[in-house]
Amino acid sequence: MSVYTPVCEAELAEWLAGYSVGNLIACEPIKAGIENTNYFVDTTQGRYVLTLFERLPAEELPFYVNLMAHLARHGIPCPAPIADLSDQYLRRLNGKPAALVTRLPGRSLERPGLAECAELGGLLGRMHLAARSYSAYLENPRGPRWWRFAVREVAPFLSAEQKSLLEAELEFQARHRFADLPRGPVHADLFRDNALFENGRISGVVDFYFAGVDCLLYDLAVCANDWCLVDAAADRRLDAARTRALLDACHAVRPFSEAERAAWPAMLRAAALRFWLSRLYDYHLPRPGMLVHAHDPEQFRDILELRVQVQPVWVD
Amino acid sequence: MSVYTPVCEAELAEWLAGYSVGNLIACEPIKAGIENTNYFVDTTQGRYVLTLFERLPAEELPFYVNLMAHLARHGIPCPAPIADLSDQYLRRLNGKPAALVTRLPGRSLERPGLAECAELGGLLGRMHLAARSYSAYLENPRGPRWWRFAVREVAPFLSAEQKSLLEAELEFQARHRFADLPRGPVHADLFRDNALFENGRISGVVDFYFAGVDCLLYDLAVCANDWCLVDAAADRRLDAARTRALLDACHAVRPFSEAERAAWPAMLRAAALRFWLSRLYDYHLPRPGMLVHAHDPEQFRDILELRVQVQPVWVD
Repeated sequence: MSVYTPVCEAELAEWLAGYSVGNLIACEPIKAGIENTNYFVDTTQGRYVLTLFERLPAEELPFYVNLMAHLARHGIPCPAPIADLSDQYLRRLNGKPAALVTRLPGRSLERPGLAECAELGGLLGRMHLAARSYSAYLENPRGPRWWRFAVREVAPFLSAEQKSLLEAELEFQARHRFADLPRGPVHADLFRDNALFENGRISGVVDFYFAGVDCLLYDLAVCANDWCLVDAAADRRLDAARTRALLDACHAVRPFSEAERAAWPAMLRAAALRFWLSRLYDYHLPRPGMLVHAHDPEQFRDILELRVQVQPVWVD
Repeated sequence: MSVYTPVCEAELAEWLAGYSVGNLIACEPIKAGIENTNYFVDTTQGRYVLTLFERLPAEELPFYVNLMAHLARHGIPCPAPIADLSDQYLRRLNGKPAALVTRLPGRSLERPGLAECAELGGLLGRMHLAARSYSAYLENPRGPRWWRFAVREVAPFLSAEQKSLLEAELEFQARHRFADLPRGPVHADLFRDNALFENGRISGVVDFYFAGVDCLLYDLAVCANDWCLVDAAADRRLDAARTRALLDACHAVRPFSEAERAAWPAMLRAAALRFWLSRLYDYHLPRPGMLVHAHDPEQFRDILELRVQVQPVWVD
């Protein structure tokens, strides 16, 4: 559990008086998550998630909350930020900028099958189309510029072999900048635990706090590297059928371009590199108060090496 | 059933391709309602209501849909309009301006009790507070100007007694213009069938197409005249306990002013007058295609006469 900023019921009840959501019934800290402090909040009006932003730059927060608001009003099942009585989505609580968003129903799946991967692909297609009319801009905060920063920071902790693999991949990616791919706002972190399912449908896509503008195909690569593994613990090659289900369903909503087909192998490597780096970073440079056990970084080294070796499937 | 503009599944499916709501599963005409054409629409993404606007002036439609969007993002359980891929809430269908809004759960109640009247009062208080930051302006389209128009239109159909009661009330209301009451966007038509309940809570407030800017107290008067009758069929005096429950709960969220206390008896009469007039109008001057049986206008004559005779309760 990572609750960096505790909030007591009395101060939350007072804070909620600045909203039109009725009276506080209950609040409960959320165990998952290492970036922000999160609480489930139930009021007489409904169920919400409260997020206190711990380290995101204040000037970036409007990009995230307005993106969620934009997607929600286009019918994408993402948390809808609640505006306060001053008509603002962000409101300070306990010295931190905070947002109240709707709590979505459903549960995340450990082992999504073909149908769920297709659901996800369709959702990504619709989300990318809906996000086209979103006008704010924030470069993907975990893009190439951050990779170079992170490599320098973690270098002192790495083996020679790790370092040379990272440097070779950075060099490869620098030669593949995807300039001609369709771009737009992407979720960029849509792992299985950030998608909720109910009755076989995606009822929620949550945690937009790594979103940014990047290639739309990047979202598919991040998802494939988590949702479509043959076996997440033992065999991290891409399962061909589930990968195809993901891609086909997205393609049916937003047809891929020729350039996207060509970029797919390198994009899978970029997505693997990004998470290997962030996990190395969180593992070797944990923040004070970060109580969630850091993920094993080497899972993503394995994924990166497999993507370098094996030519992945594409849509039929 | 009033379906003025039929929509077939094929044209609806094509129209929905302009949204991010997935594929059409089913649509069904909605029987209630005399103003617009409405359909329930189910897609792979969710459940919606489609409204084709039949006679509202096109320049007024943004006021209604933007008000619903504003209230929804403040946590008020009202239909949230879905924006299309051009980021617009209004999109033509079959030659009519149309809107797709979320379908809310719950059922309306025929006989609300004390708890439900209190729920409604609290909701009205929260809705009025949330609407304060809504900047668009539309005068209540069924306000005093419309009363005078309607009296002229229905006059040929009225008895001498009806006419003199109407004229006396218009004169009374002209002397009570409520200039010093808090004003803002009001629903103005929140009858029992426009509120949905689920598990004892209001899960939906629907049909904002008579909304406009007026005294906030007017919403309470409209509600009291429908929700708080001793017996809607036989004794249309206000039930003191339910009226007090409505007012107290609203007062707890947005405290009433002294001027509102003073205006309450006249406001109840204004609300009764408005619905007597609109029912006389729909009864004597029905529109072609209007197949719903018109309500009996004389119920609201009875309510008006009782409000003139009996001093109503106010908050404690």
